[in-house]
Amino acid sequence: MADYQTGKLLEQIICPQDLREKITEDDLPQLCNELRDFIVDVVSQKGGHFGASLGVVELTVALHYVFDTPNDKIVWDVGHQAYGHKILTGRREVFHTNRIYKGISGFPKPSESEYDTFAVGHSSTSISAALGMAVASRYKKENKQHIAVIGDGSMTAGLAFEGLNHGGSEDTNLLVILNDNCMSIDPNVGALKEYLTDITTSHTYNKVKDEVWNLLGLISKFGPNAQAIAQKIENGIKSTLLKQSNLFESLNFRYFGPVDGHDVNYLAKVLADLKDIPGPKILHCITEKGKGYEPAELGDTTQWHAPGIFNKETGEIIKIAPKSPQPPKFQDVFGHTIVELAEQNDKIVGVTPAMPSGCSLNIMMKAMPDRAFDVGIAEQHAVTFSAGMASQGLVPFCNIYSSFMQRAYDQVIHDVALQNLHVVFCLDRGGVVGADGATHHGAYDLAYFRCIPNMIVASPINEEDLRNLMFTAQADNNGPFSIRYPRGNGSMVNWKTPFKKIKIGTGQRLKNGEDIAILSIGPIGLEAKKAIEKLEETANISIAHYDMRFVKPIDEILLHEVFTKFNKVITLEDGCIMGGLGSAVLEFMADNNYQAQIKRLGIPDKFVDHGTQEELYAECFYDANAVITTVKSLMETAENKASA
Amino acid sequence: MADYQTGKLLEQIICPQDLREKITEDDLPQLCNELRDFIVDVVSQKGGHFGASLGVVELTVALHYVFDTPNDKIVWDVGHQAYGHKILTGRREVFHTNRIYKGISGFPKPSESEYDTFAVGHSSTSISAALGMAVASRYKKENKQHIAVIGDGSMTAGLAFEGLNHGGSEDTNLLVILNDNCMSIDPNVGALKEYLTDITTSHTYNKVKDEVWNLLGLISKFGPNAQAIAQKIENGIKSTLLKQSNLFESLNFRYFGPVDGHDVNYLAKVLADLKDIPGPKILHCITEKGKGYEPAELGDTTQWHAPGIFNKETGEIIKIAPKSPQPPKFQDVFGHTIVELAEQNDKIVGVTPAMPSGCSLNIMMKAMPDRAFDVGIAEQHAVTFSAGMASQGLVPFCNIYSSFMQRAYDQVIHDVALQNLHVVFCLDRGGVVGADGATHHGAYDLAYFRCIPNMIVASPINEEDLRNLMFTAQADNNGPFSIRYPRGNGSMVNWKTPFKKIKIGTGQRLKNGEDIAILSIGPIGLEAKKAIEKLEETANISIAHYDMRFVKPIDEILLHEVFTKFNKVITLEDGCIMGGLGSAVLEFMADNNYQAQIKRLGIPDKFVDHGTQEELYAECFYDANAVITTVKSLMETAENKASA
Repeated sequence: MADYQTGKLLEQIICPQDLREKITEDDLPQLCNELRDFIVDVVSQKGGHFGASLGVVELTVALHYVFDTPNDKIVWDVGHQAYGHKILTGRREVFHTNRIYKGISGFPKPSESEYDTFAVGHSSTSISAALGMAVASRYKKENKQHIAVIGDGSMTAGLAFEGLNHGGSEDTNLLVILNDNCMSIDPNVGALKEYLTDITTSHTYNKVKDEVWNLLGLISKFGPNAQAIAQKIENGIKSTLLKQSNLFESLNFRYFGPVDGHDVNYLAKVLADLKDIPGPKILHCITEKGKGYEPAELGDTTQWHAPGIFNKETGEIIKIAPKSPQPPKFQDVFGHTIVELAEQNDKIVGVTPAMPSGCSLNIMMKAMPDRAFDVGIAEQHAVTFSAGMASQGLVPFCNIYSSFMQRAYDQVIHDVALQNLHVVFCLDRGGVVGADGATHHGAYDLAYFRCIPNMIVASPINEEDLRNLMFTAQADNNGPFSIRYPRGNGSMVNWKTPFKKIKIGTGQRLKNGEDIAILSIGPIGLEAKKAIEKLEETANISIAHYDMRFVKPIDEILLHEVFTKFNKVITLEDGCIMGGLGSAVLEFMADNNYQAQIKRLGIPDKFVDHGTQEELYAECFYDANAVITTVKSLMETAENKASA
Repeated sequence: MADYQTGKLLEQIICPQDLREKITEDDLPQLCNELRDFIVDVVSQKGGHFGASLGVVELTVALHYVFDTPNDKIVWDVGHQAYGHKILTGRREVFHTNRIYKGISGFPKPSESEYDTFAVGHSSTSISAALGMAVASRYKKENKQHIAVIGDGSMTAGLAFEGLNHGGSEDTNLLVILNDNCMSIDPNVGALKEYLTDITTSHTYNKVKDEVWNLLGLISKFGPNAQAIAQKIENGIKSTLLKQSNLFESLNFRYFGPVDGHDVNYLAKVLADLKDIPGPKILHCITEKGKGYEPAELGDTTQWHAPGIFNKETGEIIKIAPKSPQPPKFQDVFGHTIVELAEQNDKIVGVTPAMPSGCSLNIMMKAMPDRAFDVGIAEQHAVTFSAGMASQGLVPFCNIYSSFMQRAYDQVIHDVALQNLHVVFCLDRGGVVGADGATHHGAYDLAYFRCIPNMIVASPINEEDLRNLMFTAQADNNGPFSIRYPRGNGSMVNWKTPFKKIKIGTGQRLKNGEDIAILSIGPIGLEAKKAIEKLEETANISIAHYDMRFVKPIDEILLHEVFTKFNKVITLEDGCIMGGLGSAVLEFMADNNYQAQIKRLGIPDKFVDHGTQEELYAECFYDANAVITTVKSLMETAENKASA
């Protein structure tokens, strides 16, 4: 194994049973230090999520110390805070392979460990999942504990509320631990956040009790019974009012806290006590992202969410300065372009569900704070809220990662498309996303958006086209308009090109050819380009290349040209091949009675694990090499037929 | 116009301005009576939603009386309670065409009236939509009011909570009216319901105030200042505690109520007062479904939700007794079959999000109350909760209408399919649903489920196959298994056939033929059957018919047979043709180098309005006549080619 800083206590722990048997209560704080050091050591060299895992070191240790895992079930919401959990549950020695191709996943994953009770990645699933487990245990008459660990950011999502509403009416062993650090990836927003801050700082009940008590003190001068009466008043208040003085108590959860989430011994004691209290309950823990590592504690919390590689001694985040100017990230092209457009068109507003830094809407939030909205982790609301604004003539650009857009699917159909409202959906992270893996790949959007009436489905091949599609989308009211682009960088150093309107439903011929045609959508088209260059050099095959730009409406004039000329066609997309561009092309052929050999390249019908985007393009067989192989094989078929 | 009972006041109202100008406050109760009578008169003869609209008669009148509609914006959540609203906003004379083909919609619809501010149908969108409108007004500096009217059932959905969380942190003119009747279509469930009942019956603050006051009364004997001190204590409690004593206040909404939702004059006064209070606020109204019509008030509220035609004098719901036994509804086949299966397999549990009577899970809820769960209007939670149970070895049958499944799309992908969990999804109301119209058609499920890895996508042609698919789905752990079936009745009188396992991914040849093949999925295959009978009688065309039964995995052996034998093929599905069965067949052809003429029949790429299912099959060109026309046209092409 690789050599990472493993303390003497941590060294003894292969699985949580070791923790429970070999570590004394007195040693728990030291173990937390060692666990924290180990995480800092590995992540500083290997990258990954950081702040969130440091924030729950004590909670992680206390949970596995007190509960009988894996018999008792811990569900980590989102899961990027579960590094400590992974290290304590048999994966310390492979932890340096975290998020690397064929290495362990950055998120809990049941196929990886029995301690990972539920696959997570998207937020706010933990309460529902843990409740399902708790109901199953009750039904099977198994005496188990079920714990959902959920951040205050995740708590704003509707799914979490739905889980609480149901959980509060089921008598099960369900413990929700609210890990309150006032953050999702970006600072948390919304009324709930204010409420949590409020109860954390004022601790309502105690405050009222104190005030009443002070007032009652005044009464004591009236006689010896006054204190007794005061006590009676206090009890009256407590029994009738406290029951409903708390949002969570309103939903029939017993509320405990807030407690210091960095006092491991106290946490262990509280958790042990809670084990004996039946029914749904919530423990409110106050933690700090990046806790225990000074640069993260003092620095920008959003930056330290996943800082990349850094010098652990100095806290300097290591950015390799490129020798020459590099193409920008697509997200930044979006972020700067929406501001440019909004300066020209006062109807434009921006909406993101808790991803302002991830999608770069923070640029607009800074430049035009009254026109850009971070609505919290709430994809459904983000879309319906956009629809509401659009119904009054505004033009919302609603930016949601492709895989998170799945959570707003009904709202897109029912609240936007059905009314043909002018909402521009920007789907960042379309296609495979790399290290975040299966939960985060934006694999399905072309398929699931294409079947929605009124929806325009577009994807730019580069920065210039992204800008032009955004320009086009806001210029006229064509109803719902979606633009998807991948994670990472584009291909144009000089990307700030003047705006040009694109005719909706038109692709472009990038290159003429004679033998075979490639139809691609999005920047994955550059893989085709590479393949074509190589093939034309080495194999003397003449290949035409078309950038479709729109999956819907599809460019029928272009396709008539293609199928009139070619009987061998390859479609290429960074998305699932079931129902995407390739299927759209097949539908066109059937509707127009064209016959041709078609090979569709894209994400196959399986869930794809993590790795770099390039590794995954190759694994999924749609990188330049795959295109080369496919072209050759199609040409061979033709030769065989010809020689037969 | 048709002759329906229109009172003297109601007669004068063409639009809300008439209401505001011509009706005095004193006359409001009488107007409510007339409006109620009109609704009873029309619905008793024409059918439609009933209980919900009667419950909001006073609220409807008060809202349009007090607010400056359509300048002020009312968003009706779900919208089936908006009959009174429709009648007062220019549609009284066409109201008898409600839900009829080419008539007015049963839900608010902006294309129908400027008073319908937002298209609704699915629940819990109103707060987000109204907030979007309110933010737009604020941005445009327009002084408008924005009112979301939402039921207590709809309030349990996550989207509503997301809207509240954001709404509470935006300073806008947003008024949420909580229409609390303790019901969705079925009795409301969950912790929120208990909470609302609690504050309604105990009125927390008043109760505490009274108790404290009583206790303080005891103190008065201690001296003349005691009452003054008591007052001070009371104020102390009020200012520090009341602020957070209420779930909605926790989310920064000012809470008012509960008020009697059937006192129109009081409602008008309260609403007028609220107009002057800035910021987000909530008015809690207690109403009764079916209010004012005795048979509905006293009868089964679920039954009176949409009773069909009834004798308005006696309250007798008119059911035309069929002369001979009729095939059952598919939903009842599901309801009875799951109980049969659960008796044999103790791992089976049932889950529905607030549709126990609509999907007939109520049969299991009665027979096995510990194994069947109504989780409230909470589709996302229904799926993740099912996933949690499945992760512990149970086999949940999660029944969600096709169009509502859109709301749980991410949970199906991320929480079930990704983990390959054994959850059986039963999608009722697949295909066009009839009178409920565009919002409720189950048009997209075959397309949006087909692209999900691990997902089995099946649809039975009749009752026997539904039973066998359900049997098959639970017999082995094949991961997620979806079974979709339409609204309405099947075709088998003797449907309770013995269970038989179906090999996954196999269709069946229903009929041999020579000239052309039809591939159908689901009961719409019976339209093909009709067409074939007619064509073989009259046109001497020999047609093969295959029931595919699975869209995924698709029956490749069957398709090899088809494409080896036929070069003219029609696909037929009660779902969108973009991405559904037809596309799956085209993909198979491309992957296997088959050439044939294919015509895909199904729901075209547009939103389809309401009408009977038969009317919509015809409009969408996939009824028996459409099949006949398509077969003939394909045969003609062949003849033309032959004679050319």
